[in-house]
Amino acid sequence: MEPLHCGTSPIVGFRFSLHPMSGDFIKIIKGALNETYTSNVWMHTDDVSTVIRGKQPHVFNVAKALTLHAAKTGEHVALSGTFSIGCPGDSSGDVYLDKDDVLLNTDDTSQYVSSQFALYPMNNPDYMAVIYKEIERAKEHGVWNDSMHYASGIHGDIHDVFAFYEEAFTHARTEQHPHLVMTVSMSINSPAHGGPANA
Amino acid sequence: MEPLHCGTSPIVGFRFSLHPMSGDFIKIIKGALNETYTSNVWMHTDDVSTVIRGKQPHVFNVAKALTLHAAKTGEHVALSGTFSIGCPGDSSGDVYLDKDDVLLNTDDTSQYVSSQFALYPMNNPDYMAVIYKEIERAKEHGVWNDSMHYASGIHGDIHDVFAFYEEAFTHARTEQHPHLVMTVSMSINSPAHGGPANA
Repeated sequence: MEPLHCGTSPIVGFRFSLHPMSGDFIKIIKGALNETYTSNVWMHTDDVSTVIRGKQPHVFNVAKALTLHAAKTGEHVALSGTFSIGCPGDSSGDVYLDKDDVLLNTDDTSQYVSSQFALYPMNNPDYMAVIYKEIERAKEHGVWNDSMHYASGIHGDIHDVFAFYEEAFTHARTEQHPHLVMTVSMSINSPAHGGPANA
Repeated sequence: MEPLHCGTSPIVGFRFSLHPMSGDFIKIIKGALNETYTSNVWMHTDDVSTVIRGKQPHVFNVAKALTLHAAKTGEHVALSGTFSIGCPGDSSGDVYLDKDDVLLNTDDTSQYVSSQFALYPMNNPDYMAVIYKEIERAKEHGVWNDSMHYASGIHGDIHDVFAFYEEAFTHARTEQHPHLVMTVSMSINSPAHGGPANA
């Protein structure tokens, strides 16, 4: 089997799927990809998901831009994904760490999103304290929605929500415990938002 | 803030979203819910996801049945979710631990699924060894597809795939390290299966 190296590379990865609840899903996904500047990240797509890897600001910037462009179609879209750092597995994409920090996607269109996230600081005995602290941060940022089993609800404008996620991801890891995983589920343009509970 | 208790309850939870890539998504989701026997699990749906909790066999059985029923529409559907045990947060649903072990959903229709999973044994210094072992198990079961950043590809018939997931989930936790998280992404009836890489 291939070795997995839990290293100290600062490369951040995001493995995700974007799901438009529409028969036009291919067109919507391809459209979002076309409208997003992805040259600052390494990207690979397979039959289940897409992974992007690179410097943290670019990974979050590309993730947000892809989601926003899909959302702007007006269709109900969902994003599910896992951010990860500290266990790169291998070095594919490390060359992207030489990119500068200028963000390429700057569309600041407002878009309400409702989402849920969970933090998994690996091999950290104090992981529950880390999680509590980031939930407090969400409340301070005004994006906290509710608590629930296995996750916390985060909502608001897409730019505020992604800014919180990037900040939480930054603060929930330490030099001593560099391997951090954060799962995010996001729902946009849903008929269930603001209405009764709905699948 | 609400306390989160990492306890020793044997209750298993699965927080998931089922995404039909179709304008008929509400009908497909409601149809799958109607055709699935869910009386053995506690269930709650909000605007982003659904959570089911109960005894492990019933949680996996309901998760598989919901997915299978949605798949049988022939539409491209995706399942994203997180299985969790050992950190129940509170005791809602513990009453379902008194259910017997008779599985209520027994539809054994074959259905190819392509999926990816990741295991996160919390606060376990040997977590990488645990992960390797379960990847080996997937190969022994004939459901391993490929390795990739941050996840492993698992595919085959839905019944074999869910059987592997339940077995991996059982073996990746110990009395000493009871808190275990497993993320699963599944893609069904995708135009990308067996074809070129596609978003």
